[in-house]
Amino acid sequence: CGERLNNQPKLTAPVFSRLREHCGGGEWLLSGIICINILMLGCALVSSSAFNVVAITPVHRQIFLITLLVLTMLWMLFYMVVTSRKDRAVLFKDRHAGPVWLKAGLVLFGLLSFLMDIFKIATYVGYLHCDSPVKVAYPIVQAVFLFFQTYFLWFHSRDCVQLHTSLTRCGLTLTLSTNLVVWMAAVTEESIHQTEITHLNISVSHKLYRANYGAKKCTCSHMACETFKEAFYYLYPFNIEYSLFASAMTYIMWKNVGRIVEHHKHYKFNFYVKDVFVGPVAGLLLVVAGLVTFVLYKINILKEDKDKRNKALLIHFIMNIVIVSLMSLSTMIGCIIYRLDRREYVSDKNPTRSLDVGLLVASSLGQFIISYFSLVATVATGAQGYLNVLNLAWAVVLVVEIGLQNYFIIEGLHREPINVMPANARAFQDHAEMANDVEGQISRYSISKKPSWKRRVLREVCAFLLLANIILWIMPAFGARPQFDHSAEIYFYNYTMWNAIVNIGLPFGIFYRMHAVASLFEVYLRD
Amino acid sequence: CGERLNNQPKLTAPVFSRLREHCGGGEWLLSGIICINILMLGCALVSSSAFNVVAITPVHRQIFLITLLVLTMLWMLFYMVVTSRKDRAVLFKDRHAGPVWLKAGLVLFGLLSFLMDIFKIATYVGYLHCDSPVKVAYPIVQAVFLFFQTYFLWFHSRDCVQLHTSLTRCGLTLTLSTNLVVWMAAVTEESIHQTEITHLNISVSHKLYRANYGAKKCTCSHMACETFKEAFYYLYPFNIEYSLFASAMTYIMWKNVGRIVEHHKHYKFNFYVKDVFVGPVAGLLLVVAGLVTFVLYKINILKEDKDKRNKALLIHFIMNIVIVSLMSLSTMIGCIIYRLDRREYVSDKNPTRSLDVGLLVASSLGQFIISYFSLVATVATGAQGYLNVLNLAWAVVLVVEIGLQNYFIIEGLHREPINVMPANARAFQDHAEMANDVEGQISRYSISKKPSWKRRVLREVCAFLLLANIILWIMPAFGARPQFDHSAEIYFYNYTMWNAIVNIGLPFGIFYRMHAVASLFEVYLRD
Repeated sequence: CGERLNNQPKLTAPVFSRLREHCGGGEWLLSGIICINILMLGCALVSSSAFNVVAITPVHRQIFLITLLVLTMLWMLFYMVVTSRKDRAVLFKDRHAGPVWLKAGLVLFGLLSFLMDIFKIATYVGYLHCDSPVKVAYPIVQAVFLFFQTYFLWFHSRDCVQLHTSLTRCGLTLTLSTNLVVWMAAVTEESIHQTEITHLNISVSHKLYRANYGAKKCTCSHMACETFKEAFYYLYPFNIEYSLFASAMTYIMWKNVGRIVEHHKHYKFNFYVKDVFVGPVAGLLLVVAGLVTFVLYKINILKEDKDKRNKALLIHFIMNIVIVSLMSLSTMIGCIIYRLDRREYVSDKNPTRSLDVGLLVASSLGQFIISYFSLVATVATGAQGYLNVLNLAWAVVLVVEIGLQNYFIIEGLHREPINVMPANARAFQDHAEMANDVEGQISRYSISKKPSWKRRVLREVCAFLLLANIILWIMPAFGARPQFDHSAEIYFYNYTMWNAIVNIGLPFGIFYRMHAVASLFEVYLRD
Repeated sequence: CGERLNNQPKLTAPVFSRLREHCGGGEWLLSGIICINILMLGCALVSSSAFNVVAITPVHRQIFLITLLVLTMLWMLFYMVVTSRKDRAVLFKDRHAGPVWLKAGLVLFGLLSFLMDIFKIATYVGYLHCDSPVKVAYPIVQAVFLFFQTYFLWFHSRDCVQLHTSLTRCGLTLTLSTNLVVWMAAVTEESIHQTEITHLNISVSHKLYRANYGAKKCTCSHMACETFKEAFYYLYPFNIEYSLFASAMTYIMWKNVGRIVEHHKHYKFNFYVKDVFVGPVAGLLLVVAGLVTFVLYKINILKEDKDKRNKALLIHFIMNIVIVSLMSLSTMIGCIIYRLDRREYVSDKNPTRSLDVGLLVASSLGQFIISYFSLVATVATGAQGYLNVLNLAWAVVLVVEIGLQNYFIIEGLHREPINVMPANARAFQDHAEMANDVEGQISRYSISKKPSWKRRVLREVCAFLLLANIILWIMPAFGARPQFDHSAEIYFYNYTMWNAIVNIGLPFGIFYRMHAVASLFEVYLRD
């Protein structure tokens, strides 16, 4: 079907796009079915390697993962060498897909994951004389895969593929499900490891520990083993982030297969900074203050002295509450201005925007779930002691802030930009009954060329929120884990459960902050 | 915004619908935020009442649920008395929403849930002298809620509300999240109960058991207590189904708020049976055979004799494998015919159809996950013994069958009906370059007025699959649980985990079968 269409270059875009909808139902379905099957099988394997270490060892899981990684690489190679080189394979590029922040994040986390793999190889080489060689093979394959995939996504994430669509769709869902299975495996391993290191007397973790290292008879043959092991576990969160980033980009590519991008709307945004002052300055102050307390926290939390640890937590909680409260306040001001300023909503359907909004809301669920579990635990135990009260307060303001910020960003993305004449104002003129209204609109837009106070305040709010989100990203991304350092929730839920919640929720929370920064930047340019 | 639009009755549908898109961004968002917050809080409460029975007792959870149920009922009352009675409140009805099978299922499961509540009240009245009265209050409130909600959904599920849209959206997401929290609570309670009754020596379940009944000092004051308790736990799965049905209907209503239904396509389907023979007869034979083995299974599985239990399992597995294999075969034939028969795809956007497809795929995940977990467990333990081999075979053919059936149904729903001239054939004539192609189409459609062999085979396949899905629905819905009677997976995963998987997956699997029956009926009418 794709072939047939591409032989008709004279077709106008709307006809072409209508035709396109008729084809491809089957391809879409087939790739979806493949994705579901790999995911379910992966889920079952990963869960059973965690719950039943006797029958399914990590080696089985790693063999499955190696197979997936190799298959994905083969397809990527085919795509890069055959499909994308052909004439008419990529007629359009989706300019909204693969934004800079996503690419930069992918490379950053990719490099750190690569480092993790190096450490892993170095560690497991020491166990080679008594453990399976698969434990060395898996990080090697994964390291190669990291390069392959980062290269592939860097250069091809904007492609709207028109040729071999069926194969490309299936290949993309294969990539997507591989990344998600790698993500599941990493989350599980990290949870098991966290459970081990607390030395809580849980028999399950001991059993796991022994099973991982061959019933404790297998000892490392070189000295640096323990150091490497500690180092690579420290880098796990970055690998988890990398998989999430790659999944998001692959999903966007999958949605774009066979898509015809119409270049009908082309806003030119200008990046002014001169009008705004309060927001950026306040934001920068917050970032600096946040960095200082973050460094203090990281230094003090590892001390033996319990008082110092509590003090570190106290400062961290207070700083976070201050940041999040200020953000809630400024977002509220922004929302009120949106209410006052009755601009038109953007009327065109934009798949990338819908996807952006979906990813924003979905990733915010990660922080929501952690906060609500914290909240229930603290309220149920009576919130005794100042640390618990602060923890409760933090959970509450976070829920408020994320709700408000989501509202603000989504409203902002759906409004017509102020500084351009909207294209659909012309479309409206076709409807005679609306002519008056439209003229009013146009004059309103011409007036708003010089920045009104509303526009200035919105920009201040955006700039402030943007910087505040950056510091809220830095803290968890570089290893602040008050969820484990403060033990209230650990004792309330059992350890494994709280681990699973934080390890699933927090990477999404980190992704959310980066995504929010990018979206706020777009809102800033629009206002 | 809704108000403003409704004052302009002269607007044509397309203009009206475009305007509508401009409004309501904020309302949509607000209701979404409410839904997420209730769900997360509910999730945290339900989980902690399962994992930490000391701090959060079932009483706390039930107080939360009672609050939600009462709030939902208040909104429903407001909607039925104020909103829906007003002029212009419901200008359109979505004829696709709230189909008969969904309504019938709702009433059936509602009645059984009501019975469950009666039994619950009778049981907990016996504990009143030493346990919290909330345990009696909750089933009473739930019983009232069942009547309210069933009445509400029966009469209003097709409404496309145009007035008080903001309040209605929020009310509907409140209803949706209430149902989902009730669902979560029921799944958790059922899992805990199942863990208890196996008398496995797991300390956790004993702790739970004692906490549920006041540290085993609280005994029932009347004789029928144990009988009632057994009866209401038997009815739990129906309550779980009821919540899922209500959630699906509420979600459709929420999507329909503010929607303008355009009556532009109106197929008249005729229900012929005379052309088909093999499919219905084979299907009926399968249903009868399935019912016979099901009754045998139910009788023998409760016997003390282990040989008889194994024999019952053997028959049940073989019967299921036969049914599912035959279904896979006939679906494959259907898919081949779809490949041969290159009919056009339906080009109009239909939100109800997209939702239908989404629900079908999502609910099939339930069966997928059970099958894959079974598969991994059986393969990992080496599939020793004929029962394990049969269990493995069943898991494999189920995965194949569901994948094929999803493909078949979705393809079928997206094709132009055979027995009507497609509306878009006329639209195509505008494009001169396509005229030849279109004429070919039209003549093809005129010829196909008399049933071709392809059409006959498709109808046979549909009829057969429809009946086969009915028997596959009956067996799990009325209490066949080979997942617990056959102990391979219970020992492989730990008990709690396998319980959670089956209790979450199976209700979706049951929902899937009913949904598939309805969808196959629609495909039957189209072909």
